Amino acid sequence: MSFTDVLFGRPLASSDERAEHIGIAAGIPIFGLDALTSAAYGPEAAMTLLIPMGIAGLDHIVPVISAILILLVIVFFSYRQTIEAYPGGGGSYTVATENLGAGAGLLAAAALMIDYILTAAVGISAGVTALTSAVPELHNHRLSICLVILVVLTIVNLRGVKDTGAAFIIPTFLFVGSLLAVIVVGTVHFYLSGGHPVPVVIPPPPAATTVKYLTLWLLMKTFASGCAAMTGVEAVSNGVMAFEEPRAKKAQRTLSIIVVTLIVLLFGITWLSKAYGITAMEPEAHNYQNVLSILTTAIFGRGWFYYLTMGSVLLALSLSANTAFADFPRLARAISMHDYLPHVFILRGRRLLYSHGIYALTGFTAIILILFGGVTDKLIPLYAIGAFLAFTLSQAGMVVHWLRMEKHPGRLWHMFVNAFGAVATGITLVVVLIAKFMAGAWVTALLVPFLIVIMMVVKRHYTRVKREMKDMTPLNLTNLQEPIVVIPMARWDRIAEKALRFGMVMSQDLKVVHVHSDDEPMGLEEEWGDKIIAPIQKEGLRIPELVTIPSNYRFIINPLMDYILELEHNNPGRKVAVLLPELVVRHWWENALHNQRVQLLKLLLLLKGNQRIVVVNIPWYL
Amino acid sequence: MSFTDVLFGRPLASSDERAEHIGIAAGIPIFGLDALTSAAYGPEAAMTLLIPMGIAGLDHIVPVISAILILLVIVFFSYRQTIEAYPGGGGSYTVATENLGAGAGLLAAAALMIDYILTAAVGISAGVTALTSAVPELHNHRLSICLVILVVLTIVNLRGVKDTGAAFIIPTFLFVGSLLAVIVVGTVHFYLSGGHPVPVVIPPPPAATTVKYLTLWLLMKTFASGCAAMTGVEAVSNGVMAFEEPRAKKAQRTLSIIVVTLIVLLFGITWLSKAYGITAMEPEAHNYQNVLSILTTAIFGRGWFYYLTMGSVLLALSLSANTAFADFPRLARAISMHDYLPHVFILRGRRLLYSHGIYALTGFTAIILILFGGVTDKLIPLYAIGAFLAFTLSQAGMVVHWLRMEKHPGRLWHMFVNAFGAVATGITLVVVLIAKFMAGAWVTALLVPFLIVIMMVVKRHYTRVKREMKDMTPLNLTNLQEPIVVIPMARWDRIAEKALRFGMVMSQDLKVVHVHSDDEPMGLEEEWGDKIIAPIQKEGLRIPELVTIPSNYRFIINPLMDYILELEHNNPGRKVAVLLPELVVRHWWENALHNQRVQLLKLLLLLKGNQRIVVVNIPWYL
Repeated sequence: MSFTDVLFGRPLASSDERAEHIGIAAGIPIFGLDALTSAAYGPEAAMTLLIPMGIAGLDHIVPVISAILILLVIVFFSYRQTIEAYPGGGGSYTVATENLGAGAGLLAAAALMIDYILTAAVGISAGVTALTSAVPELHNHRLSICLVILVVLTIVNLRGVKDTGAAFIIPTFLFVGSLLAVIVVGTVHFYLSGGHPVPVVIPPPPAATTVKYLTLWLLMKTFASGCAAMTGVEAVSNGVMAFEEPRAKKAQRTLSIIVVTLIVLLFGITWLSKAYGITAMEPEAHNYQNVLSILTTAIFGRGWFYYLTMGSVLLALSLSANTAFADFPRLARAISMHDYLPHVFILRGRRLLYSHGIYALTGFTAIILILFGGVTDKLIPLYAIGAFLAFTLSQAGMVVHWLRMEKHPGRLWHMFVNAFGAVATGITLVVVLIAKFMAGAWVTALLVPFLIVIMMVVKRHYTRVKREMKDMTPLNLTNLQEPIVVIPMARWDRIAEKALRFGMVMSQDLKVVHVHSDDEPMGLEEEWGDKIIAPIQKEGLRIPELVTIPSNYRFIINPLMDYILELEHNNPGRKVAVLLPELVVRHWWENALHNQRVQLLKLLLLLKGNQRIVVVNIPWYL
Repeated sequence: MSFTDVLFGRPLASSDERAEHIGIAAGIPIFGLDALTSAAYGPEAAMTLLIPMGIAGLDHIVPVISAILILLVIVFFSYRQTIEAYPGGGGSYTVATENLGAGAGLLAAAALMIDYILTAAVGISAGVTALTSAVPELHNHRLSICLVILVVLTIVNLRGVKDTGAAFIIPTFLFVGSLLAVIVVGTVHFYLSGGHPVPVVIPPPPAATTVKYLTLWLLMKTFASGCAAMTGVEAVSNGVMAFEEPRAKKAQRTLSIIVVTLIVLLFGITWLSKAYGITAMEPEAHNYQNVLSILTTAIFGRGWFYYLTMGSVLLALSLSANTAFADFPRLARAISMHDYLPHVFILRGRRLLYSHGIYALTGFTAIILILFGGVTDKLIPLYAIGAFLAFTLSQAGMVVHWLRMEKHPGRLWHMFVNAFGAVATGITLVVVLIAKFMAGAWVTALLVPFLIVIMMVVKRHYTRVKREMKDMTPLNLTNLQEPIVVIPMARWDRIAEKALRFGMVMSQDLKVVHVHSDDEPMGLEEEWGDKIIAPIQKEGLRIPELVTIPSNYRFIINPLMDYILELEHNNPGRKVAVLLPELVVRHWWENALHNQRVQLLKLLLLLKGNQRIVVVNIPWYL
């Protein structure tokens, strides 16, 4: 078993595909981690904006989160329908393309690609930030730690979807389980104490009230920030193909479990925070704790359970990046099936995965992590935009879909759900865009059109190539003529002999070209007669032409190129085959000992040549 | 006129060579600057070691420098004879190789290469050090300034030897002229004042005496340090070929002028220092000035002449690196003519220079400057070793040379001069090695054998290639058989048609190979009958064989390689030509849109293939 096999698993045959499909238990960690971990930062994101209102802010947080949960339910129903309607997967991109046209599809594609790359980068760096807060000695190594986690995620994902699910099940259930325990125990305390629970540890006091009234602008910003809690919900719809049969049903059930769990976590955390009088703290405060930490301490104190909960949150956050690894390659494949991205994304690697998508995601994530030195917290506003753009397009697409399915029972009800969802998420998108524009959403607003232009250029290239290459006509056998064979020859040696022998088999029309520099004592003429002409004459074969080109300036390549191009020009309709002897050395460093003119000539012949010039490499093994 | 022509000059024809040869006036700056500038630091290097003796040290400095001058005269006569005996140039390397054998030649070669690279690096950084002492704001940019000077030197040298001479004549004569003025005026003052000249500005007082007696060890170290004054003397002997006819005579005269000037400068500076009671200062002293600066101030005061002199010293020092540019390429050429270095060093570039030697020197010098951050003062001890090793070998070689020239008049006298020189420089070499071993000479002692091993490996490679390639036998025309042509084909399109047409011209024996992956809906079979077989049958030509290889694991390259290698194995004595269609895109980035399997296959065929497998590139221009 090779090292590659140990690291990435043995290669899988195409017929193994069925066995690689996953069930619901593996589907939740693979496609749900990104959505579920939103519970860890979503409520806090909204509560942070209410800090200036002090304790009064708590009155507004439950309504805001409830509004977000209603939106979440709408989006959930919409995606459930999408999964049923498009069991081939592809999510927003497919739905938008098929129903709203290529333009809307590209918009969704660009939004989702940005979303996934940011999910990977932000997830990893969020985990590492939590880790370095706990162990400050690691602070200077955060970028390295981020990159190590990225490499580990890449390797795990290159092993295939089944192994990935197995690896992530425990961290996911630990995360969900410990948060549920906090919520359940907190709720029990609340009711046992008659609505006035006594915290084990008193939470830090709320900040002084500096803003008295909730303005519309503040409400919008709070709502927009809280919407971060909804990212990741579209993941399942992109990955339907990964599930075992009955595919759509299993995917739907996975999505249902994920969304119900997410609703419980989001509402539970928010409601308990209000019940215990917990407000968010300024992140710059010297004794800063996040809301989850304060809440867990209030309910359980600082015992082993506190550390278990915090540890599982940290682990789940950094693994949430994995959802991007599960979806990005599938998305890239769907896009390149329509010729909008390089075709490599369609190829499946040794483990039946779209490996190039994984490489691309790893590359882009690494670039972002390096650019921002592993501190990607500022990127969080960017990626709600991508998610909501995808939500809106997907649901608008579904409306058109139902319009077309005239016979489908309950079509109007489905259409109503999707239309309502499209309008709601569309409005949210505008709100988020306005509220977060200066904070960084403008970057996404620039990147999306940029990506769309790239995809259109790629499409144009492929369309042209297909048009030019397509040949459904039968083989054309007219005008089959021997090529003119050109053999550049510096001196008479064994590789020159090999080339000449090969040339004589290929064609009767041979030109041996010798570029003669004034520096050299003698040309080929000396040996030409005895060594070359004589044996050929004896066999009665046609004698090759010796072309000697003088070169005053010791240039070899240019006169040779000029000669070949002229020859081609003067013999319209004939092919010119250039035989290039090539020394193959035993060790790479030996290449430095031979001049690389042949490589340069090959390159120039490709660049300056045309359809009628063919290069034949005659290798000589040293 | 292109940009290249403006920067490097128009290309020169081989027949222009005569016009590129130089006379004595250009020879002095090109080959003499390194030797002449030794006057600026040689006496000081010796005097620095006598600082602990205080004013008493002055009694010893003139005898030490006199001993060095005697050695210099011996070496001078020796090199004069070498020039006459070897008008083809090559200096120590050629002399040692021809008379003492290849081993001694390699030793000289390694020593000289190290010497030249260090000369370039130390020269440039010495100049920059002087500049940054004068303008401390530039201190943080010293490495950048070093590299800029290196690039300028490279460009000037790439223009050719004649232009280089012209550029350097004025700085050289300014340097020599101002130092001569100092010496002449100082001497006149000395005699006019009856042996007790009155300095215009009183020199700093000598250090307190801490060492009373001159020990043998201190004398040895002083002598070894002063020997730095002799470096660069071998330069002319390496460059004899650059001179116009009568070549040897002009080179000898150039060498004579250089050495006589150097002797005057060295003795003058040393003797006047004693006369004016000037001792060296600790380089770490806060008001440090070098001996030249103190001497010039004592004789002329701090007027414009002082600044002219100091400026010309600075300029000459940084240009002294140029001697390495003049000699290194010629040395590399001589070594690679014996197959000990890559043959590129033999090629002459567009300006009739051994351009690759210039590139190599620039590269190595840049590496050293970057490694040491432009502070290369510590490298000075290293390069006296190289110079003296070359002196000794060259003169020992000349002894053998005279032994063989039995008829030469005055042979015994010549032999005596060279033998005396060899012994003297040999002893000096040992003294320098011992005195400077810990200070850095050990680096040279390690580098020399390392370089020798590299040169021997290169030689072994070339010898093997020559043995294997040499073919003085006539063209062998037996067993001229058509190759088996293999055409990998993924689908039937226009480039496949082009390849097939070319293959049919090449051979009757065609194999169209289709690797069929389970992922793909259909193979080639569908179109094979109608589109390919039918027209061929109609023309009555031989039908190619369709080979379909199933691939469960979606690998394309491996099954194809296996098939080709097996085919070759089963058909001993036949050539196998693999026709590889290659898309040539219009813009480089378009390559990312096509998979690069063909490139990989070409590479694998070269690496795993053998003498009987030939690759034919069929280009298709998009």
